Amino acid sequence: MSKLWAKGYDLDKAVEEFTVGEDPILDIELVRWDAVGSMAHARMLAAIGILTPQEATTLCRELARIVDLDNRGEFAIPIELEDVHTAVENHLVHELGELGKKLHTARSRNDQVILDLRLYMRDRVLAVGDGIGGMVRELIDFADTHRDVPIPGRTHFQLAMPSSVGLWAGAFAEALLDDWELLDAVVQIVDQCPLGSAASYGVNLDIDREMVAELLGFRCVQNNVLYVNNSRGKIEAMLLSVCAQVANDLSKLATDVILWSMPEFRYFSLPPEFCPGSSLMPQKRNPGPFELTRAKAATVQACLFEILEIVRPLISGYNRDFQLTKGPLMRGLRTTVACLEVNRLCMERLQVNRDACLEAFRPELFATDRVLDMARKGVPFRDAYRQVAGALDQMEMEDPVANIRRKTHTGATGNLGLDLARARLAEARKTLETRRKRWQGALTLLLDAAAPGADPAIP
Amino acid sequence: MSKLWAKGYDLDKAVEEFTVGEDPILDIELVRWDAVGSMAHARMLAAIGILTPQEATTLCRELARIVDLDNRGEFAIPIELEDVHTAVENHLVHELGELGKKLHTARSRNDQVILDLRLYMRDRVLAVGDGIGGMVRELIDFADTHRDVPIPGRTHFQLAMPSSVGLWAGAFAEALLDDWELLDAVVQIVDQCPLGSAASYGVNLDIDREMVAELLGFRCVQNNVLYVNNSRGKIEAMLLSVCAQVANDLSKLATDVILWSMPEFRYFSLPPEFCPGSSLMPQKRNPGPFELTRAKAATVQACLFEILEIVRPLISGYNRDFQLTKGPLMRGLRTTVACLEVNRLCMERLQVNRDACLEAFRPELFATDRVLDMARKGVPFRDAYRQVAGALDQMEMEDPVANIRRKTHTGATGNLGLDLARARLAEARKTLETRRKRWQGALTLLLDAAAPGADPAIP
Amino acid sequence: MSKLWAKGYDLDKAVEEFTVGEDPILDIELVRWDAVGSMAHARMLAAIGILTPQEATTLCRELARIVDLDNRGEFAIPIELEDVHTAVENHLVHELGELGKKLHTARSRNDQVILDLRLYMRDRVLAVGDGIGGMVRELIDFADTHRDVPIPGRTHFQLAMPSSVGLWAGAFAEALLDDWELLDAVVQIVDQCPLGSAASYGVNLDIDREMVAELLGFRCVQNNVLYVNNSRGKIEAMLLSVCAQVANDLSKLATDVILWSMPEFRYFSLPPEFCPGSSLMPQKRNPGPFELTRAKAATVQACLFEILEIVRPLISGYNRDFQLTKGPLMRGLRTTVACLEVNRLCMERLQVNRDACLEAFRPELFATDRVLDMARKGVPFRDAYRQVAGALDQMEMEDPVANIRRKTHTGATGNLGLDLARARLAEARKTLETRRKRWQGALTLLLDAAAPGADPAIP
Amino acid sequence: MSKLWAKGYDLDKAVEEFTVGEDPILDIELVRWDAVGSMAHARMLAAIGILTPQEATTLCRELARIVDLDNRGEFAIPIELEDVHTAVENHLVHELGELGKKLHTARSRNDQVILDLRLYMRDRVLAVGDGIGGMVRELIDFADTHRDVPIPGRTHFQLAMPSSVGLWAGAFAEALLDDWELLDAVVQIVDQCPLGSAASYGVNLDIDREMVAELLGFRCVQNNVLYVNNSRGKIEAMLLSVCAQVANDLSKLATDVILWSMPEFRYFSLPPEFCPGSSLMPQKRNPGPFELTRAKAATVQACLFEILEIVRPLISGYNRDFQLTKGPLMRGLRTTVACLEVNRLCMERLQVNRDACLEAFRPELFATDRVLDMARKGVPFRDAYRQVAGALDQMEMEDPVANIRRKTHTGATGNLGLDLARARLAEARKTLETRRKRWQGALTLLLDAAAPGADPAIP
Repeated sequence: MSKLWAKGYDLDKAVEEFTVGEDPILDIELVRWDAVGSMAHARMLAAIGILTPQEATTLCRELARIVDLDNRGEFAIPIELEDVHTAVENHLVHELGELGKKLHTARSRNDQVILDLRLYMRDRVLAVGDGIGGMVRELIDFADTHRDVPIPGRTHFQLAMPSSVGLWAGAFAEALLDDWELLDAVVQIVDQCPLGSAASYGVNLDIDREMVAELLGFRCVQNNVLYVNNSRGKIEAMLLSVCAQVANDLSKLATDVILWSMPEFRYFSLPPEFCPGSSLMPQKRNPGPFELTRAKAATVQACLFEILEIVRPLISGYNRDFQLTKGPLMRGLRTTVACLEVNRLCMERLQVNRDACLEAFRPELFATDRVLDMARKGVPFRDAYRQVAGALDQMEMEDPVANIRRKTHTGATGNLGLDLARARLAEARKTLETRRKRWQGALTLLLDAAAPGADPAIP
Repeated sequence: MSKLWAKGYDLDKAVEEFTVGEDPILDIELVRWDAVGSMAHARMLAAIGILTPQEATTLCRELARIVDLDNRGEFAIPIELEDVHTAVENHLVHELGELGKKLHTARSRNDQVILDLRLYMRDRVLAVGDGIGGMVRELIDFADTHRDVPIPGRTHFQLAMPSSVGLWAGAFAEALLDDWELLDAVVQIVDQCPLGSAASYGVNLDIDREMVAELLGFRCVQNNVLYVNNSRGKIEAMLLSVCAQVANDLSKLATDVILWSMPEFRYFSLPPEFCPGSSLMPQKRNPGPFELTRAKAATVQACLFEILEIVRPLISGYNRDFQLTKGPLMRGLRTTVACLEVNRLCMERLQVNRDACLEAFRPELFATDRVLDMARKGVPFRDAYRQVAGALDQMEMEDPVANIRRKTHTGATGNLGLDLARARLAEARKTLETRRKRWQGALTLLLDAAAPGADPAIP
Repeated sequence: MSKLWAKGYDLDKAVEEFTVGEDPILDIELVRWDAVGSMAHARMLAAIGILTPQEATTLCRELARIVDLDNRGEFAIPIELEDVHTAVENHLVHELGELGKKLHTARSRNDQVILDLRLYMRDRVLAVGDGIGGMVRELIDFADTHRDVPIPGRTHFQLAMPSSVGLWAGAFAEALLDDWELLDAVVQIVDQCPLGSAASYGVNLDIDREMVAELLGFRCVQNNVLYVNNSRGKIEAMLLSVCAQVANDLSKLATDVILWSMPEFRYFSLPPEFCPGSSLMPQKRNPGPFELTRAKAATVQACLFEILEIVRPLISGYNRDFQLTKGPLMRGLRTTVACLEVNRLCMERLQVNRDACLEAFRPELFATDRVLDMARKGVPFRDAYRQVAGALDQMEMEDPVANIRRKTHTGATGNLGLDLARARLAEARKTLETRRKRWQGALTLLLDAAAPGADPAIP
Repeated sequence: MSKLWAKGYDLDKAVEEFTVGEDPILDIELVRWDAVGSMAHARMLAAIGILTPQEATTLCRELARIVDLDNRGEFAIPIELEDVHTAVENHLVHELGELGKKLHTARSRNDQVILDLRLYMRDRVLAVGDGIGGMVRELIDFADTHRDVPIPGRTHFQLAMPSSVGLWAGAFAEALLDDWELLDAVVQIVDQCPLGSAASYGVNLDIDREMVAELLGFRCVQNNVLYVNNSRGKIEAMLLSVCAQVANDLSKLATDVILWSMPEFRYFSLPPEFCPGSSLMPQKRNPGPFELTRAKAATVQACLFEILEIVRPLISGYNRDFQLTKGPLMRGLRTTVACLEVNRLCMERLQVNRDACLEAFRPELFATDRVLDMARKGVPFRDAYRQVAGALDQMEMEDPVANIRRKTHTGATGNLGLDLARARLAEARKTLETRRKRWQGALTLLLDAAAPGADPAIP
């Protein structure tokens, strides 16, 4: 077994450990993508005459076996093989001899890892999209169910004006729907096929980059071969900047819930099976999932920052530094998807204590409504404001439920516009499903064609 | 003159200075947006009967005068008035008496500043778009002019394979075009009208939010009133995450140019009027604009992170912390636009020293082409690789120009695909112009209707 | 008037504006430091024979006049002169003719700006130290005054065990004292005299760097001339990393106070003259200074990261990028000092509502104390824990004041160790005063010697 | 086997996975520290009468066995046990029955993990110190060996003035020595014993915190029990801010070496066993360790940023968010130590190509020396500057070696002051060894006293 660039000298052990780093662990996530990417590459090499159709088919069958091994958790990457690309090529050479050595024609590892990561990101976009979609639906349902539960609206943490649980949950649904629009734009950029850049400068062979793109279900080829390499880390950062938005939204939601779950408020409560306890204090039931959601937002942003800063000082073309963008990319995506899933579960089970919400109301919450009542009757606003400010102790309570129902302008407590959010959700999901179908359809075709007994001529 | 919330006590002076902060300076950029936003608000208040049509017209005329004053640099914001909203209301009360006190009906300063910033961002998006557009066109032209100038392609800073000035410039054109796609998605999110959220919880008046949105040329109303406030900082960060991408692209370009301008390379040179000198060393001509572009990328990213971190810990609804997002937003946008403009100027004047580029070629740059020649003839790639690796000292020079012309697969040096980039640029510009027309058209209507002698019934 | 490096060509106007940037504004803070630094340089040039004693004295007198002008706010830096160094040299040439042109011998602007910033940082360290000192004293006094006011201690925002206002305030005093230890280490690094590095590589003159260091009151010379330039931004980041700690401490304090000032808690309240109001809601009194303190912590951290990221990609020696570290350095320091001052004022006036604190107590806060009572009597801790957990509804109230007084182990509510904190404060202040005396003493000597009528031979 | 807080309900599986997170993996690094910390706690509980001396001894023996198991890699943390503290307590209960349940008296897991991390950081400080020390010595030796090898000094990447390899290496030695001073201050803060804070509010038992501190070799007790918890993450960030400085220094060194190793410069070269190759290009030998050092600086800074941002929004007292500071702390420290070790190895083997250095000299490098020659003879500096600037093409070459030797002022190429650096290194190492002895001595005593056959009365 040997490194792809072996040429008669060995790396110093400490240097090897330093340079290989976490790759053997992180790359496990890339095995399937490396294999299917290689299948498309093999088909293309056959199409332009570098491989015979039979050679391509043999390679594809063995690559499909690697996918199978990986599905069963049986494909390992030993440290001395550095990375997934080397492990796959060594496997092929071991199983297929000379033929295995031909597959790398017209590509480099840089090329491969960009393709692998593009396929990985495409796949994770589906998970992020599903996560956002599930959470948004939960939030809309939650808002609908609790549309008439009033809570004190706050600004500056102080009592402001009447609000509602419906308004609160609806706000987060719309935040995440905006994030989804951003995700949708990033997907278009992710969904370009990079293969064919080689070391960043193309090759002196008539490779058919459009064919590879089509076999893998990409929207298009990413054109300029140097840009392919320059976009390493850049596109990752674009994707993580969406994750940072999602994570910040969930962090705000968590911050709200933690506050409203304090015994002094009790607007919300989580069932015990969502609340870890204390090793010392027997009475504790802590809002652990929400606290960690808050903290994980910092993690996601640190991942974004790490990638932006790794790539910022680099000259054009491949640089080894790119290797270190894999860790934060995977960590950032994994964290975001986990937060979406757990928060959906939590929202599903979050109890609203209507009585506690109603008890929280105080007359001052209606002061502004009184000012506007006066303004409606012709008192100049600023005068009405000062008049009410001077008589706050005479402010009277109002029925909070009636109050929030009566505010019916666009987006107010009595007119949440949840149908609008539902329509946006449906639209976003439709787009996602179209993409999922195109991407998974292409990969299914590739894998089917490599199945034992399949017609080697297809595709 | 007094604060909008004055009610019989004064702020401690040190606290006032601390809380007012940079607002009187930063808000100068918002005067025009505060005035036109207030014009739309006044028209809407008339439409729902809070103001008479004549009152609305009078207010609009005075607000148009404020726009004029601001155009001449004559509208100031004294520190004791805190911010642009107070300065404008005080001006109106001073000029129009009682009527001036009515305008604030159904809105809060939070509401106003979000609208002002949304209008400001919408305007700056045009500047960023123009900046990207100008730079992309320059890069495409530069790539076209120098498509046949070979330079050594690098990976790991070491010699890799033949590249070209055309490939290099084209890579940056495509990077910025991808940024533009992201910008386009963010614009959709920016282009929602926030007014009507009041303190974050709407009002007990039948305000017509759609009318305000239309008068100001917005794509739609931003629905949920709590989300309007929760999106403060969030949308700013979305916009700056595009700027961070642009700034990183320009930083990479600058890093390349600084390197290739070293006397040991001389591929590029800048004319002296772009190069500041040294106070001590008489011979120095420094690539100042590029060094600062590199550094300013760090500034833009710091602005993004400052905003993300300011808003992350906040509960729902308005919090004073939002005030501090204005500074980094403006600094980030200003820096990005300046970098785009100066880099376009620099690219316009950057000289390519063809002779230096040609002299830089060495035989090892062709080693990979030799390996692939062998692969084309049937030698397994990995064997060919090892064979060439073992005989590097016998590698022969090739004509670099012929070499780069001969690589004609998609996106390679002989097939840059500049037409594709040109088409994307044209498309992006068209979309931007449509938006510009809608936005500026709406504002022109508003201002025209407020001109002396205009029919007060319109719009 | 002309640039120091003028040699027959002019900078493109757009490039000039881009490269000069904020310098004419930021550098106003450096005028006095540039002048006194130049006085020391002039004295040294005289000592090694480049200037005559009379020339040095003439230069020093004019430089002292610049300090006077600056004290009166009358020394301006026009944009075409780029920076403070050019403005000062031009002033000298204008006033003194040929002699003014001699002062720059053996130094460069890079050299000068490093010295100016070192003197500026040294001065700001005094302000940060004073700010920490004032705040710590206030916190200790506050802790002492309220040592017997119990408040519910929280973990996870939930009720945990009895705490006290004294414990709370004492925690922040100790946090800031730890920051001061870090500051003290950074001061040692700041307090090295950089002058003499010239362009980063020294000069071919026998300059006396020790003399300059002594004249300016520095602890020592910063030895390696290349390191002098490489440390630009580095030492700034060290100083800001202390500020980031201070800002985070104050942010936590602010976060606590904002929470405990909510109407549902009312443990704390701020007097009205510290609370800005709302333009819409007449009842609002907002904890503005604390909200802004929370947000400004993000600003300080962004300043730290901006500097770290600006310098990270640079090769050794001066690079123009350093220019952009001035802005975040000054912003970070100014913000930190302002937060310390305003928070001290706020703590001075923060009211503790003892009744509200006492009413907040609930039986579950004593659960852990019960478990430990049982453990003291021999029940294995984990069994006692489970027993109490099973009977939480039978938990009885205890007198909170007696409870907190009874906990007397080191650092507990009944044994705050404020004397220890007082001793650390006194020690820290003594060290600071020693430094202040050395630094200010040296500068006073320099200025006195330049006064009209002073003996030109001294120092 | 059960969780420490188990009281009749189970956590939802998804929530459990989310909240346990990486702890079972990360905590492996803490096993030894949890065990020795628990030994000190047990001895203290015996001293105050909660345990009998025999009980304490039995517990200590079993805890010593855990250290042994961990040394052999045989102590595992199953996910259902959440963390190291639970795994250790379960082990004790399993082996010792009732006695195992007594150990947790008077402490909480929060308490424990802070102690574990403090011991972990103390240990890693030794590794960082050793790493800095080794690198500084290597740099001083390197500087000494190559003190007379001239290289062109650069500013703005352009040719500036003569420099030397000695000056270059010496600059990094001094940078790291300054970092060591900062580390030394942070160590003082790390070296405070936190145990006894319990849940953040102390306990109603007369625990002897000084005894625990002494048994574990700490400098002192960290006094205020609330501050103990508030300092979680804070002290970690202080330590990582030193690491960020070290990482940035190494990144600059790496950036220099990568540049000077380009074939156009060849001042430096790395032996092949330090240079990974390319899978595509047979000629490549890449400066992989240096590229990764550059990138890892961004990683270390992201770790710092992550911790600062996790803790920033938290109220006083323990919050679950702290859990997520462990990952970046460990990643940041591990990365810093690895960079120091690998860079030392690289410097040890870095070859200086004297001929290439000499060939790189050009007349313009001596321009400033000529200006200063004229200034020495009485020409006003600015006039001399302009004269030389006007006749650059007549500049003559000088002997670079003679030039750098002749510059003998403090810190210049002819007077590197390496003895000063050597003295600082010796001093720093001495302090480190004193600490190592105190820390390791205390732990050895604890472990020895727990050995089978040891006198249970000691210590």
